[in-house]
Amino acid sequence: MTSAPASPGHTHGQHTQTPGYAARKADHLARLSKIEGQIRGISRMITDDRYCIDVLTQISAAGRALQEVALGLLDDHVRGCVTEAARADPAQAEERFAEFSDTLRRALRL
Amino acid sequence: MTSAPASPGHTHGQHTQTPGYAARKADHLARLSKIEGQIRGISRMITDDRYCIDVLTQISAAGRALQEVALGLLDDHVRGCVTEAARADPAQAEERFAEFSDTLRRALRL
Amino acid sequence: MTSAPASPGHTHGQHTQTPGYAARKADHLARLSKIEGQIRGISRMITDDRYCIDVLTQISAAGRALQEVALGLLDDHVRGCVTEAARADPAQAEERFAEFSDTLRRALRL
Amino acid sequence: MTSAPASPGHTHGQHTQTPGYAARKADHLARLSKIEGQIRGISRMITDDRYCIDVLTQISAAGRALQEVALGLLDDHVRGCVTEAARADPAQAEERFAEFSDTLRRALRL
Repeated sequence: MTSAPASPGHTHGQHTQTPGYAARKADHLARLSKIEGQIRGISRMITDDRYCIDVLTQISAAGRALQEVALGLLDDHVRGCVTEAARADPAQAEERFAEFSDTLRRALRL
Repeated sequence: MTSAPASPGHTHGQHTQTPGYAARKADHLARLSKIEGQIRGISRMITDDRYCIDVLTQISAAGRALQEVALGLLDDHVRGCVTEAARADPAQAEERFAEFSDTLRRALRL
Repeated sequence: MTSAPASPGHTHGQHTQTPGYAARKADHLARLSKIEGQIRGISRMITDDRYCIDVLTQISAAGRALQEVALGLLDDHVRGCVTEAARADPAQAEERFAEFSDTLRRALRL
Repeated sequence: MTSAPASPGHTHGQHTQTPGYAARKADHLARLSKIEGQIRGISRMITDDRYCIDVLTQISAAGRALQEVALGLLDDHVRGCVTEAARADPAQAEERFAEFSDTLRRALRL
């Protein structure tokens, strides 16, 4: 897969190519790379027949790390995209509030 | 990392090398491999400056898939290790109940 | 509502009237009574137009307290009902494992 | 406890007495009143020695309902307080972003 910018079908109104998380991209990528390593480690534990509880402890750690990335992105999104829209464009702000609420619902597993 | 069995420090009483999830190993490994791919896909979305909300949607999906693996392992553990200990050895059963409770606490993020 | 025992429709196999949590009933009831007070306090905060964030902090505390009660009951259930069935009756044990897994799924919000 | 307005110590900058959820107060109060009834029902089930799994099912339902109230308040807060501050006062906006992030962290149980 190439590093193409977001496809036209994902422009979300005025959104073009600077997502809210732009300033923290390297930080999010470093965390995700670490999580990928954690998942690989969990697979190895299962291959090695490690004790269930030890595997579960590592799954909890990886899940928590993934939620930390989600929290960072939610935070970036409110600071960037949501308040930007709120300042500039009431109609777009309404759309942003609605999609933020849906996203929060999924993050809270409702 | 070699496929060494659990180190002596992790034998947990009578536990040797058949974890509760033995019969479903292939299934758990397939799910984890898919999750690893999801995490890589999320990194690629961030590299490509994809919209925050789309990234968050994928993070929720990966987190949910990881919780499904945890649920499967918790289930295997109760069916295998916990009830086995309950049948065979009251002292070990008590230890198993306590560690299961701790693990559940972490899975519920308490 | 009177203190009638579980209706016949809820006997769940051999289950009659000693639930797994019998020994910790007073503890669970005390926690629930405290949570009821927390919910009432949250309503009062909203009536009094208290700041959103302060209300949300109290909701998180009450939600966590409720999960603690769930954790205690899950723990009691595995110690009591699940292992009891595993010792006494393979067919009932299978049913218990399945319903425990469903309950865990809901507790993990999957 | 009397219906005193938020104490001066809780004014949070310019915040006075119109919280972000003002327009949906009746809705939030109705939901909380229903949750209070659910908690009382759960206590009654325990008093009546109802089956653990049935009690846990009701706890999951109450916990989910409480998270729905939290989601509504988070939503109101972003629409109201956060974007208001973002439009009017950069310094206060920064404070609001930080406290929103902390609140989200607690709601996600991190």
